[in-house]
Amino acid sequence: MIQEHFSFENIQLFITDAMVALGVPKKDSALIGELMAKADLQGSDGHGIIRLAPYAKRILSGGINLNPNIKVKKEKLATALIDGDNAMGHLVMHKATQLAIDKAKTTGMAWVGSHYSNHAGPASLYARMALEHDMIGLYFAVGNANHLPPWGGIDMLLSTNPIAAAIPTRDEIPIVLDMATTVAAYGKVKAKAQKGEPMPEGWMIDKHGAPLLDPKRSDEGFLLPIGGYKGYGLSLVVGILAGTLNGAAMGKDVIDFNKDYKTTTNTGQAIAIIDPNAFGDIEEFKTQTDRLIKDIKNSAKMGNTSRIWLPGEQSHEKRIEHLKNGIALPQTLIEQLEQLANQLHIQPLAAMGMR
Amino acid sequence: MIQEHFSFENIQLFITDAMVALGVPKKDSALIGELMAKADLQGSDGHGIIRLAPYAKRILSGGINLNPNIKVKKEKLATALIDGDNAMGHLVMHKATQLAIDKAKTTGMAWVGSHYSNHAGPASLYARMALEHDMIGLYFAVGNANHLPPWGGIDMLLSTNPIAAAIPTRDEIPIVLDMATTVAAYGKVKAKAQKGEPMPEGWMIDKHGAPLLDPKRSDEGFLLPIGGYKGYGLSLVVGILAGTLNGAAMGKDVIDFNKDYKTTTNTGQAIAIIDPNAFGDIEEFKTQTDRLIKDIKNSAKMGNTSRIWLPGEQSHEKRIEHLKNGIALPQTLIEQLEQLANQLHIQPLAAMGMR
Repeated sequence: MIQEHFSFENIQLFITDAMVALGVPKKDSALIGELMAKADLQGSDGHGIIRLAPYAKRILSGGINLNPNIKVKKEKLATALIDGDNAMGHLVMHKATQLAIDKAKTTGMAWVGSHYSNHAGPASLYARMALEHDMIGLYFAVGNANHLPPWGGIDMLLSTNPIAAAIPTRDEIPIVLDMATTVAAYGKVKAKAQKGEPMPEGWMIDKHGAPLLDPKRSDEGFLLPIGGYKGYGLSLVVGILAGTLNGAAMGKDVIDFNKDYKTTTNTGQAIAIIDPNAFGDIEEFKTQTDRLIKDIKNSAKMGNTSRIWLPGEQSHEKRIEHLKNGIALPQTLIEQLEQLANQLHIQPLAAMGMR
Repeated sequence: MIQEHFSFENIQLFITDAMVALGVPKKDSALIGELMAKADLQGSDGHGIIRLAPYAKRILSGGINLNPNIKVKKEKLATALIDGDNAMGHLVMHKATQLAIDKAKTTGMAWVGSHYSNHAGPASLYARMALEHDMIGLYFAVGNANHLPPWGGIDMLLSTNPIAAAIPTRDEIPIVLDMATTVAAYGKVKAKAQKGEPMPEGWMIDKHGAPLLDPKRSDEGFLLPIGGYKGYGLSLVVGILAGTLNGAAMGKDVIDFNKDYKTTTNTGQAIAIIDPNAFGDIEEFKTQTDRLIKDIKNSAKMGNTSRIWLPGEQSHEKRIEHLKNGIALPQTLIEQLEQLANQLHIQPLAAMGMR
């Protein structure tokens, strides 16, 4: 019987096995496995193992460079442009973030952009890397498919262009914001389609402005930006910072990676790292952040609200729950992964069992 | 007869005169007059001359340091913390932005934060300063009154905490985003109150969650964040970046400058400057930005939409219109400024005429 819950370790192992079978070097496969499984672990279910089959399809179509030379193309004291050489995006942004952290230690803050990268999973993965160094991480990316028209338009020239921010704390859970500039990320639409569930009203509208609820009809409509014209503006600015600034695809040049598995996406992303010690004292900063979090958590609630959440708390609780009880995957996804395992001649995820 | 339209120059002159009469040094007064009048010129009517009487009240109450020593308190290669010494915020952030631009020329990008600053007008004023140097400006601030509770709460621990971004272009109007992380900025609520107009539904709700439409009852409710919990998260992160990181007021510590005209606000702001040359070539960047703008402007429109706007285009058109026809001020504001002129023994704005 195919199980429905899988351990973090087995998801990580399965992805790593698949990447190795696809021809990705072992060390790179392990890093991709870790980062993708971390996405599922934190509940970013639109960005984890659900992407494995599409990634595999792209790799098998020759759309990814498996032996890339990811290198610094341009550099100043506080900045760098990384040429991803069409590698898996996880490898590019992991390297970019490490570089930004190193630079920020000297300069106080650093900003590293990428081009010729690819989809790299949830934005928070990279912003969170700053936390281990008691630093603040900010991440911006151009989404890999345009599902957002400019405000008042119907031509889909923009993407969900996400923003992530990670803020270190002392005893409290770190603040980790990870948000699309649209009401829903397109990964969430895909997850709804996989689960066979309708979308809530407000996520998408069709070309006549009517609500679109069936995630399988998502091609017929577009995502709505947060706050109307404000979200449109935010998506545009994030896209310019992560894309145009880095000579990466933006606007009309964005390749829809759901439809085209071969063309180089020239994905652009950016990571900014800030060292709180450059502005004050990190211990005082963490004390004040904790105090702010406590003030918010203990503040008066409205009507039916049972709890006031901080950004990052829900994913933290999911991590704990998933480590204990495993990560639930929908049946359609399990079957898709079974097929992939057969195709790649690797041990199926289902056969690995829960632990 | 009191006129209703006033030239940019006369608004600038009147504010400068008022500042001098209040005891602000001449050079500082001129800079404040210029920046405040620029706010009205670009249609930021919640942040221009409408703030003169409250600023005057704060100055007369001893709430502003008129002879401040605005200095760099902490500095690394790409960062600085500016101690505003409780000066007018315009002076602090003008200096902070100049410093960030200078640093970015060497390091590729720079981030300068402030504490012990004060309200500095619309966020875009400072982000826009980058444009003269062909650079990108990003601005973040802690709002000067808490009108936003955490999502699901009713304690007003957060403010409208705005974000601005300015992106250089070649032939097109520069992209300038200037947005509160709430659906409406509180300055817009004040402007509605001055004009005697109701607020649209969706700007504010009362403590029971019902829509609040009367701007004069704004004390009884709170602003709504953009995109619900996402806007709450954005406001929180912006507040930490502009406030907590700089040792400035955030959360419970924010002084409501509408009610308290004396206590030091310890306002925090931050400006980030990015040199596109650090990531590529500025001419190519401007070419690509122009192309993106043209693609958006010329894209297909929805139903009744007559024009697709880029962020910054409306304020650009207002600048042109206001330079030609003058800036309209509401009667209540004109009367308030008349009283102020009498109190300060300066020439009233109305007497200066239209040009």
